[in-house]
Amino acid sequence: MNRSPDPRIDPSRVVRAPRGTELHCKNWLTEAAYRMIQNNLDPDVAENPQALVVYGGIGRAARDWACFDQILATLRELNEDESLLIQSGKPVGVFKTHPNAPRVLIANSNLVPKWATWEHFNELDRKGLFMYGQMTAGSWIYIGSQGIVQGTFETFVEAGRQHYGGDLSGRWILTAGLGGMGGAQPLAATLAGACSLNIECQQSSIDFRLRTRYVDKQARDIDHALELIREHTAKKEAVSIALLGNAAEILPELVKRAQAGGPRPDIVTDQTSAHDLIHGYLPMGWTVAQWKAAQQDPSQHAALKEAAAKSCAVHVQAMLDFHAMGVPTVDYGNNIRQVAFDQGVKNAFDFPGFVPAYIRPLFCEGKGPFRWVALSGDPEDIYKTDAKIKELFPDNHHTHRWLDMARERIAFQGLPARICWLGLGERHRAGLAFNEMVRKGELKAPIVIGRDHLDTGSVASPNRETEGMKDGTDAVSDWPLLNALLNTAGGATWVSLHHGGGVGMGYSQHAGMVIVADGTDAAAERLARVLVNDCGSGVMRHADAGYELAIETAKKQGLHLPMLRA
Amino acid sequence: MNRSPDPRIDPSRVVRAPRGTELHCKNWLTEAAYRMIQNNLDPDVAENPQALVVYGGIGRAARDWACFDQILATLRELNEDESLLIQSGKPVGVFKTHPNAPRVLIANSNLVPKWATWEHFNELDRKGLFMYGQMTAGSWIYIGSQGIVQGTFETFVEAGRQHYGGDLSGRWILTAGLGGMGGAQPLAATLAGACSLNIECQQSSIDFRLRTRYVDKQARDIDHALELIREHTAKKEAVSIALLGNAAEILPELVKRAQAGGPRPDIVTDQTSAHDLIHGYLPMGWTVAQWKAAQQDPSQHAALKEAAAKSCAVHVQAMLDFHAMGVPTVDYGNNIRQVAFDQGVKNAFDFPGFVPAYIRPLFCEGKGPFRWVALSGDPEDIYKTDAKIKELFPDNHHTHRWLDMARERIAFQGLPARICWLGLGERHRAGLAFNEMVRKGELKAPIVIGRDHLDTGSVASPNRETEGMKDGTDAVSDWPLLNALLNTAGGATWVSLHHGGGVGMGYSQHAGMVIVADGTDAAAERLARVLVNDCGSGVMRHADAGYELAIETAKKQGLHLPMLRA
Ligand SMILES: NC(=O)c1ccc[n+]([C@@H]2O[C@H](COP(=O)([O-])OP(=O)(O)OC[C@H]3O[C@@H](n4cnc5c(N)ncnc54)[C@H](O)[C@@H]3O)[C@@H](O)[C@H]2O)c1
Ligand SMILES: NC(=O)c1ccc[n+]([C@@H]2O[C@H](COP(=O)([O-])OP(=O)(O)OC[C@H]3O[C@@H](n4cnc5c(N)ncnc54)[C@H](O)[C@@H]3O)[C@@H](O)[C@H]2O)c1
Repeated sequence: MNRSPDPRIDPSRVVRAPRGTELHCKNWLTEAAYRMIQNNLDPDVAENPQALVVYGGIGRAARDWACFDQILATLRELNEDESLLIQSGKPVGVFKTHPNAPRVLIANSNLVPKWATWEHFNELDRKGLFMYGQMTAGSWIYIGSQGIVQGTFETFVEAGRQHYGGDLSGRWILTAGLGGMGGAQPLAATLAGACSLNIECQQSSIDFRLRTRYVDKQARDIDHALELIREHTAKKEAVSIALLGNAAEILPELVKRAQAGGPRPDIVTDQTSAHDLIHGYLPMGWTVAQWKAAQQDPSQHAALKEAAAKSCAVHVQAMLDFHAMGVPTVDYGNNIRQVAFDQGVKNAFDFPGFVPAYIRPLFCEGKGPFRWVALSGDPEDIYKTDAKIKELFPDNHHTHRWLDMARERIAFQGLPARICWLGLGERHRAGLAFNEMVRKGELKAPIVIGRDHLDTGSVASPNRETEGMKDGTDAVSDWPLLNALLNTAGGATWVSLHHGGGVGMGYSQHAGMVIVADGTDAAAERLARVLVNDCGSGVMRHADAGYELAIETAKKQGLHLPMLRA
Repeated sequence: MNRSPDPRIDPSRVVRAPRGTELHCKNWLTEAAYRMIQNNLDPDVAENPQALVVYGGIGRAARDWACFDQILATLRELNEDESLLIQSGKPVGVFKTHPNAPRVLIANSNLVPKWATWEHFNELDRKGLFMYGQMTAGSWIYIGSQGIVQGTFETFVEAGRQHYGGDLSGRWILTAGLGGMGGAQPLAATLAGACSLNIECQQSSIDFRLRTRYVDKQARDIDHALELIREHTAKKEAVSIALLGNAAEILPELVKRAQAGGPRPDIVTDQTSAHDLIHGYLPMGWTVAQWKAAQQDPSQHAALKEAAAKSCAVHVQAMLDFHAMGVPTVDYGNNIRQVAFDQGVKNAFDFPGFVPAYIRPLFCEGKGPFRWVALSGDPEDIYKTDAKIKELFPDNHHTHRWLDMARERIAFQGLPARICWLGLGERHRAGLAFNEMVRKGELKAPIVIGRDHLDTGSVASPNRETEGMKDGTDAVSDWPLLNALLNTAGGATWVSLHHGGGVGMGYSQHAGMVIVADGTDAAAERLARVLVNDCGSGVMRHADAGYELAIETAKKQGLHLPMLRA
């Protein structure tokens, strides 16, 4: 058989971004793109770099290795008045633009709606005609797991702000699931200042999180867990505790004890993979071995699904009981309410999802996953920017706490990077300050500033980020398109438009933005525009939907929204 | 009942763009947008201006009258370093950008794919949260029916080029349907230099086209029609002839006569509305009165549909017979092949659709519906640009013919405008020449340059413009998104991203571009970039799909396509 090798797989490749101040391209803007695409494929960053996969299933940095090589070659030659076009990971054209235009324009995975399915995607992808860009994989600004820890941290902090006057010390969070995403919960809770009790049914998952210090200790049983919670909350120590067991069995027991005067959690949530009833949720009464065996055996799938769904109903009932006691309870985007509802739990949706409850208020202020990367490769550059953020925002205590603990607890992956949710009125101040530090030589090399596509103005995703918008415009994707056009007009260094990130083909459209602070005056002008416009367009989108907080933010920050003024 | 009036309907409104050289805005770029949105609603241009409807069903220029007023007010104040954002016809924000950025950025009717249906659209539209932008309605560059005449003309000219060495004189086109679009056929055939025989079953439709001089004469019967054809083709006169009757009855008769040595058409096509079997296609043997009655009576719909479909099968069989005789035969996008196929005509798709056959070769050269408008309002300005085009392209005879006859036969609607398909290497020369004429005062005011969204690089529409792409990438919409980003980066004056134009919700994504030639050096630089990049990105898209003609064009015009060179 004459099989040509897969052009996307090359086991010989080990990619790592260049460090230091020597340029491989004609200027720092193109050098930044050159380093960041390579950084996305650093073995410490990417999940499967030899297949060009960065994260999130099959989210790639380039369509195949030939395209990757040609992207690098083209960036090396690109002039300061040219723009490179990337179409689903392939470098398709170089056109004359001007110095204030983006150097790279990217469109990944976009399909005309009627054809926007995984089937059609796969057909094109198999033929080498397409690529899944996820969010920051195909737009070259992924920074590893710091992002999920920070997102979870901000969610918990916002809950603390809404329910506990901004102080989570002496409080505890009850949750379950220590998997790929859920494993960030104990560390995020600690960083937010709270204790946490984390139920997980697989010892291996607990072991992994103990080893990487994402969770502090494991309790022997429920009694021991509650004893530890009582002890540490009393001392206002933010300690995270894992408990081996099935959430559907343990939560009802904790409800019973709370009703009988025992400890009562201060926040309840869940990150088991209830969205996948075959692989994601252990049914009550089953051993993990039974569960894994049933997963492998299609003839048992119906029974497994049924048992898992029934258990989810019990689990949600316990969450509803906590909710009824007045404990803030949220769904963390794993669809568990829907599963319980389908099982007959009529009031499953009594407690809200985490986006409407905690993320949207942040979006209304333009806050979102702002991040930056030191092109020098030197961690000291990031530590200096950490200090600068503290200096710029002296009253933002939870950000100070985050920066201190992130430095201590989170290892850099690839080029040193930091993430930190800043809002409208803050981001451009940070950007300009970093640019000034580059200009003055306080940093060894320029800083790349970007964000996730999941941000205030850059995503339409009706099952997640734009679920339950006040005016019902969850599915309107004019907003991310405008965001991309505006960032292109403002002079971001690269801009991207993707489809299907996070929730898959057909379910989302979103835009990315990256801008380089190279210490020049021109960069300062661009930063001042783009970092205001980018999150300003998010405040605009939420103000348009009728959120009071966004309308107030727009007024306070002096946004010009014609129909609001009219 | 307390019904608030529909904010989209205002019978008191009569909108007409200002003419002359007095500015209502701060510069000509914003003045252009200010005049063009109003021109779209000119009673001579728009189909239902008091409901803000420009064309194409419910394609609107603004969401409602309050939004329209606020768009004008905002444009009046907009500075040369600001950009106005329009979200489905609503002015949602003004942001700081720079003089080389677009002054207006537009996103209309975009929905996340899973929700991209007319049902969801209607729900949002009813609540005043959305708008259908069609193509040039919501992006303010519609110029009336000159567009359809020119598109049909180019199609016929290209057919002549492919089959008859570029000379249609003494040739005749056989078609049917003189409705809204189809009525452009006889005039387009005449302008292309060919005779035409146009079968139409309603005398009223023929009368309308005789009155407006789109068709020259009506034949009494088949014999008379063929006599006229014989006479005029012999004299090489491009005369259009209407014939009252049913195409499904007349075409088979014409086949019989051709087989018996009678006149043989040189091109066969059809623009009855076969895509709508209730309202669009008269069944054989039915009178028009019977047909209209059955349309009104739902109980007769099944029988009507059945009879119409059967007749389409007969009609297509006759087209196949001509095709088999070697007569170039094409489907004009009315779905008649599919109807016949469903009726058992197994080889219905033996003849091609008009896009792959005739439009795509033009797209491969970057040719598409380039158009411009005289902001002065003075027809003389357009006549001078007509002359300039002839001067610039002395060998482009069919364009000379088009310009002469368009001037003579097509009345201006609203601000004087011209459309003319130019390709890569031509458009920017035209744009720069117009800019020079403005600079020198040869024209009374600046010229607005734009195009339809249906163009070489700006549309993904798998049932029409991108049907049957060579590499199967019909549904990939990265291309129109890149087109919009690139035109934003290059400095077009306004840029738009729409969904659902032409073929409805879910079936297309497309981008618009308008750029103003105000006679300045800055405009010249922008024109030189944008008018190359805009159609260059179309040549790139077709070269990437593997079309040889596009690859050649790219090489000849010096496009930089990295993976082609690699
Ligand atoms: N909306 C968002 O932005 C967002 C963010 C993060 C996670 N999520 C959702 O959260 C869920 C978890 O994500 P993940 O990546 O960590 O998934 P994962 O599959 O890696 O981890 C799930 C964990 O839950 C454990 N588990 C399963 N059933 C259990 C039970 N009955 N009791 C206790 N533990 C049990 C599993 O052993 C596993 O470790 C997913 O549904 C994901 O979609 C959503
Ligand atoms: N793909 C494209 O870009 C494109 C462009 C133009 C038109 N079209 C298609 O062409 C068709 C015509 O468009 P329109 O806007 O002119 O439609 P229309 O409904 O306004 O006109 C159709 C005309 O056909 C006549 N007719 C119907 N049945 C007939 C019969 N059996 N014999 C003779 N005449 C008959 C009707 O009386 C009517 O005048 C539509 O299906 C349209 O979608 C496609």
